[in-house]
Amino acid sequence: MASASAPRDAPPVVGIGIVGYGMMGKAHCYGYTLAPHVRPLACRPRLCVISGRNRAAVAQAARSYGVKRAVGDWRALVEAPEVEIVDICTPPGTHAEIVAAAAVAGKAVICEKPLAADYADARRAVDAVNAAGVPNAIGFNYRRLPAVSLMKQMIDEGRIGEPRLWRGTWLSDEFLDPEIPFDWRFRRTLGASTIADLGAHLIDLAGWMVGEVVAVAAQSKTYVSARRDPKSGASAEVDVEDASAALLRFRSGAVGVLETAKIAPCRPCDFVVEVNGTDGTLRFDYARLNELWYGDVRDSSHLYGMRRLRAEHASHPETAGWWPIGQGIGYGASFVNQAADLLQGWPHGKWTPDLAAGLEVQAVCTAIEQAAREERWLEVADVIANATV
Amino acid sequence: MASASAPRDAPPVVGIGIVGYGMMGKAHCYGYTLAPHVRPLACRPRLCVISGRNRAAVAQAARSYGVKRAVGDWRALVEAPEVEIVDICTPPGTHAEIVAAAAVAGKAVICEKPLAADYADARRAVDAVNAAGVPNAIGFNYRRLPAVSLMKQMIDEGRIGEPRLWRGTWLSDEFLDPEIPFDWRFRRTLGASTIADLGAHLIDLAGWMVGEVVAVAAQSKTYVSARRDPKSGASAEVDVEDASAALLRFRSGAVGVLETAKIAPCRPCDFVVEVNGTDGTLRFDYARLNELWYGDVRDSSHLYGMRRLRAEHASHPETAGWWPIGQGIGYGASFVNQAADLLQGWPHGKWTPDLAAGLEVQAVCTAIEQAAREERWLEVADVIANATV
Amino acid sequence: MASASAPRDAPPVVGIGIVGYGMMGKAHCYGYTLAPHVRPLACRPRLCVISGRNRAAVAQAARSYGVKRAVGDWRALVEAPEVEIVDICTPPGTHAEIVAAAAVAGKAVICEKPLAADYADARRAVDAVNAAGVPNAIGFNYRRLPAVSLMKQMIDEGRIGEPRLWRGTWLSDEFLDPEIPFDWRFRRTLGASTIADLGAHLIDLAGWMVGEVVAVAAQSKTYVSARRDPKSGASAEVDVEDASAALLRFRSGAVGVLETAKIAPCRPCDFVVEVNGTDGTLRFDYARLNELWYGDVRDSSHLYGMRRLRAEHASHPETAGWWPIGQGIGYGASFVNQAADLLQGWPHGKWTPDLAAGLEVQAVCTAIEQAAREERWLEVADVIANATV
Amino acid sequence: MASASAPRDAPPVVGIGIVGYGMMGKAHCYGYTLAPHVRPLACRPRLCVISGRNRAAVAQAARSYGVKRAVGDWRALVEAPEVEIVDICTPPGTHAEIVAAAAVAGKAVICEKPLAADYADARRAVDAVNAAGVPNAIGFNYRRLPAVSLMKQMIDEGRIGEPRLWRGTWLSDEFLDPEIPFDWRFRRTLGASTIADLGAHLIDLAGWMVGEVVAVAAQSKTYVSARRDPKSGASAEVDVEDASAALLRFRSGAVGVLETAKIAPCRPCDFVVEVNGTDGTLRFDYARLNELWYGDVRDSSHLYGMRRLRAEHASHPETAGWWPIGQGIGYGASFVNQAADLLQGWPHGKWTPDLAAGLEVQAVCTAIEQAAREERWLEVADVIANATV
Repeated sequence: MASASAPRDAPPVVGIGIVGYGMMGKAHCYGYTLAPHVRPLACRPRLCVISGRNRAAVAQAARSYGVKRAVGDWRALVEAPEVEIVDICTPPGTHAEIVAAAAVAGKAVICEKPLAADYADARRAVDAVNAAGVPNAIGFNYRRLPAVSLMKQMIDEGRIGEPRLWRGTWLSDEFLDPEIPFDWRFRRTLGASTIADLGAHLIDLAGWMVGEVVAVAAQSKTYVSARRDPKSGASAEVDVEDASAALLRFRSGAVGVLETAKIAPCRPCDFVVEVNGTDGTLRFDYARLNELWYGDVRDSSHLYGMRRLRAEHASHPETAGWWPIGQGIGYGASFVNQAADLLQGWPHGKWTPDLAAGLEVQAVCTAIEQAAREERWLEVADVIANATV
Repeated sequence: MASASAPRDAPPVVGIGIVGYGMMGKAHCYGYTLAPHVRPLACRPRLCVISGRNRAAVAQAARSYGVKRAVGDWRALVEAPEVEIVDICTPPGTHAEIVAAAAVAGKAVICEKPLAADYADARRAVDAVNAAGVPNAIGFNYRRLPAVSLMKQMIDEGRIGEPRLWRGTWLSDEFLDPEIPFDWRFRRTLGASTIADLGAHLIDLAGWMVGEVVAVAAQSKTYVSARRDPKSGASAEVDVEDASAALLRFRSGAVGVLETAKIAPCRPCDFVVEVNGTDGTLRFDYARLNELWYGDVRDSSHLYGMRRLRAEHASHPETAGWWPIGQGIGYGASFVNQAADLLQGWPHGKWTPDLAAGLEVQAVCTAIEQAAREERWLEVADVIANATV
Repeated sequence: MASASAPRDAPPVVGIGIVGYGMMGKAHCYGYTLAPHVRPLACRPRLCVISGRNRAAVAQAARSYGVKRAVGDWRALVEAPEVEIVDICTPPGTHAEIVAAAAVAGKAVICEKPLAADYADARRAVDAVNAAGVPNAIGFNYRRLPAVSLMKQMIDEGRIGEPRLWRGTWLSDEFLDPEIPFDWRFRRTLGASTIADLGAHLIDLAGWMVGEVVAVAAQSKTYVSARRDPKSGASAEVDVEDASAALLRFRSGAVGVLETAKIAPCRPCDFVVEVNGTDGTLRFDYARLNELWYGDVRDSSHLYGMRRLRAEHASHPETAGWWPIGQGIGYGASFVNQAADLLQGWPHGKWTPDLAAGLEVQAVCTAIEQAAREERWLEVADVIANATV
Repeated sequence: MASASAPRDAPPVVGIGIVGYGMMGKAHCYGYTLAPHVRPLACRPRLCVISGRNRAAVAQAARSYGVKRAVGDWRALVEAPEVEIVDICTPPGTHAEIVAAAAVAGKAVICEKPLAADYADARRAVDAVNAAGVPNAIGFNYRRLPAVSLMKQMIDEGRIGEPRLWRGTWLSDEFLDPEIPFDWRFRRTLGASTIADLGAHLIDLAGWMVGEVVAVAAQSKTYVSARRDPKSGASAEVDVEDASAALLRFRSGAVGVLETAKIAPCRPCDFVVEVNGTDGTLRFDYARLNELWYGDVRDSSHLYGMRRLRAEHASHPETAGWWPIGQGIGYGASFVNQAADLLQGWPHGKWTPDLAAGLEVQAVCTAIEQAAREERWLEVADVIANATV
């Protein structure tokens, strides 16, 4: 009877530490676990440590997600010798400190977006990884969806000509119910603004596809300005906006419109990005994430209209190792692809997008926040100059 | 053999004069012709006169649209005794003068949107009809679509609670091709700005559904700044913008985002309007004009999502006299319903929306144009104050 | 002051008589009224007479639809000298007799679908027009929609290669409510079967696009088998099926699936037709009637997916005289185009589809009805042979 | 510094053997790997052995999917003492033998669909597991999608009343290109018919939601009847149909239409299932797998239309442990949920659907195949009676 040999030539292990066991920590664990299923990697990711302040919860998370060890303090994770990559999944306000500590410890850093709750902190995080010279990446996971990646590729291929108009809208109802009790998401220094939380993804995509945003005008609005603090029972002030909108000016001459809201009823997490170029249009609607809409004016006018591309073709980016076309992937695939993309050449190669990319996005977020406060147009460069004084 | 009597008790005739035989003139003729088919009216509209400078073309239009007489000069139309209603379908820059002449002649006035190419002209038009005391209406025909009218009705019924976020986007590719020769549409004083041409409809809907717009910030962009004049062969300057976007602030506390573009490839005439309230969302997509999307947070969470209402039910507004549900109406129905709505109580009753409503929209358009030029937030009231000095 | 001459060179009038003032009569009046608006015609259609048994109702219809005269008996209409075209909009069971009378009177005949409630009657109608040699047409109005006509054109151009699979589904909820009282629609000899009422359109499109149907298997189902007769108050037997489905075999080797139902909740009038060929797919969904979906395997695989054609381009069939692309037409346009197509060359030219086309469809309907009853496959040719014995 | 304890109280391991390393083997490995991430399980699935004839390929698969050991012969897997569950992912024609061997070895069995290539084999498989008394399950994974499971739940809750009409269509282009070389998929005894391959899922859903199918009529068609065998270079006969369609009769009185095709251009894997009941409609379109369409006639007629439910709400079945609403899951989630559902109570509890359910589906498939061959209606019971003689 035939018996094949067991897998012998397995690649070297790379130890991962996950800071935070919430939804994002879970998503990242999911990504590392499946990355080898979809892509031959030069290393084997091992989930070594996960950290979190709630002992029972983090221990349960470790069991569920197959992490070897749970710790209560992220510093223990950063210092653990088996951890080579520190993957930060905590609230935005905590990122900079953890990034800095990991960088000082010589660990590679992967950090969830937004990089920080404000520009100065984001700057410090980037300075830290640069000083330490460690590999670093920011978690703009939506770039890893095939349809989104295909959109970028098609723009780079000139399929819509020169981009002129960009629009991105992210509608959620996360903050709609005024009875939702106060928590860290409603405190800007911890959870960051809505423009940074949701908008960071859109601004990243705008920058990636259309180029640098140089000036903005904006308005923000908070309708539920206080919520009951479940600990104290008292009313706590909300300083995170319910909705923001901005006009964008790109260096290229393109213009854009950005809208983010957490008070849009029956809109769970609906984001749409569209670019109109000189020769065509591309549109991505996250609610139908396996599709990409494309129209090309150079097509026969008899076929006027847009195509609904099924962004799962083997020739499309980020589809390697996934299902046959038509079966569809979900949100989780973005984390699997992110893990696979980053680990593919480990420990060599440069990660992208890196924290510096996160900082650029943060600059635009900060400019939008300030432009809304001051009710005027602002140059992003000026905002940066002031923010880093 | 039975033979029913011929229709004897026909209602009195009302004479209509159509100024302009282009696409809008055609659409208005279509509307008057069919209005009696869908609605019992107290009067019988008779297309008496149509005017236009091209003799052959206007004569052909008269034959095609069943108009009794064609004239070369709109003044002859205004003065024709059989014309009781002057319906103005010429380019925006010509409206004010014709409105004024018709008002002076004591005729009722129906005027296509935008009311004028600038605020001062629009003001003059309104002053003229007010001074003359003649019935007057502005052609915001999209209000007459069942789905749009239902949207307004549902907001008024409180079905989405208090409106908070409004967004409207109108994408067309009318100006995309740089080889399109220069014509009146590219001269602001004749064709009005894009924000006025396309945006006027959206601003009207915003005002109708959410209330007064009090402040705006905006940006506008012209990519093709000169076009060949087919008469002279020379290059003519284009002073109408290819695209505009604006942030809106409503008196109610709601906020909005408005975008209009005539350079969006493969987007023939795609406008979308959405309102998010405290309790629900309504969304209209003109490309599927017989549908209205509605989500209500008070619904069972088990049924989370939005409904695609088929806005053709007999209980819906503006459906009277149309087809059984599911058959669908088109653009033309908006003109049929407009004619029917206006003629229903003729010669009694007040028409709505009237030119004053057109003026309010014009004020917002003007504020947006100026805010874009000056790159700052503007109060609409201030713009009006200055415009009327 | 300039004054253009009144339209003098108007084309000769052609007198139309509309038999029946219900929904279909209204739609046909709508069509004739607007036909000259969209297309230069060699004749001017004049709505001379409309007939119906309810005196008040038919008189009101005449007033509303601009018909000169109303009569109580269709025979008076047929005999009226000013009537050159008899347009039959009564229930299916009455068609054959009226067709025959009109043919004998030497009138051109336009007859709503289905041609009759059974094959023998349909045969008689065709024999009558053939014997009289009068122009005749069957009211397969959906062929006149731009998207449907484009679908046919694209198949003929080879854009999907050789058709292999056809499917058509028509879902309505017209019969869903068991409380709907009995009327002629529930009596097969008057209203025809559901397969004939709804299916006739689909079978016509199948035959037009894919070719002759030669064999069928089917099943039919009536869930509400009796309804209260509002006149007698008694329970009346329903002999029209609530739903039918059939397997089709085409002469070409293609195969098909057909489904019609009047008991599909929340499905007002939703029909979908799809053809899969050797090289591509075309799909039409009536709920979005200004669109046509098209996929071509010869396209770049990088663009895998289907296109949503906006079937309103000036190069598309049946768009002449309609609105700019993106504005959208509705159900009514099919009747306008039908009238324009038929009147275009009046009194010359051959009308298509003619009653013989209606008869071919009737043969398939009859075969399906019989195949369902007998629970076996039937050759359409055999059914015809038997039906005409 | 705080350090939480490592996970100690991990549940007992259950050893899994995966027979076949192709796409389905991969999908099942994916499922077992992630099941603990989404659901607290009473056991820890361990991927112990994977089998396949291609040594290099199966060894690579083992490495990629995290399986401890690769073997060349499935018998070695079945006999491996650490394997408690044998999960069969090989071509249909091989299932029965492997099921029987696993059952004899006392192993629990999970078998991909269709259960076999013909009814007799499927019967033997069921007899084997029954005789051995081992837990057994059939891989109808689409049941595990939230939207599909919600559809079933809503029918059971009476939300559409009594089901009357069922339709299911599965369009793929897997066989479209005649240049695809011959392989096992084109040999019925190995790959099963298309009706069994694709249709099995649909028939399972029909049975699950609407009940037993008792009679069928059908037709099948093979357009490409021979393909080049890449080994011999010769032409090999294809005996698997390109397309099938069937009329279904349910015991309940409901009726159905089923269509499956592998030659539908630009249709990668598009399946749609709709049920119309006495009170409502439910529709699932796999291309938008996170949605479920629902219409209820008992709703206000003012809201006529269907809802697009976002089938990701925490209250929906099969959503436990997945992402926040709006993020979306993909095909892979069906295997994760399948693994989690089956392992949840391991080693206690009864698995569902079991192989007997697979046999019931096989009976309908066999009846459809035979009805197509014989061109007549068949009772499923008669087909079973004959098949098991």
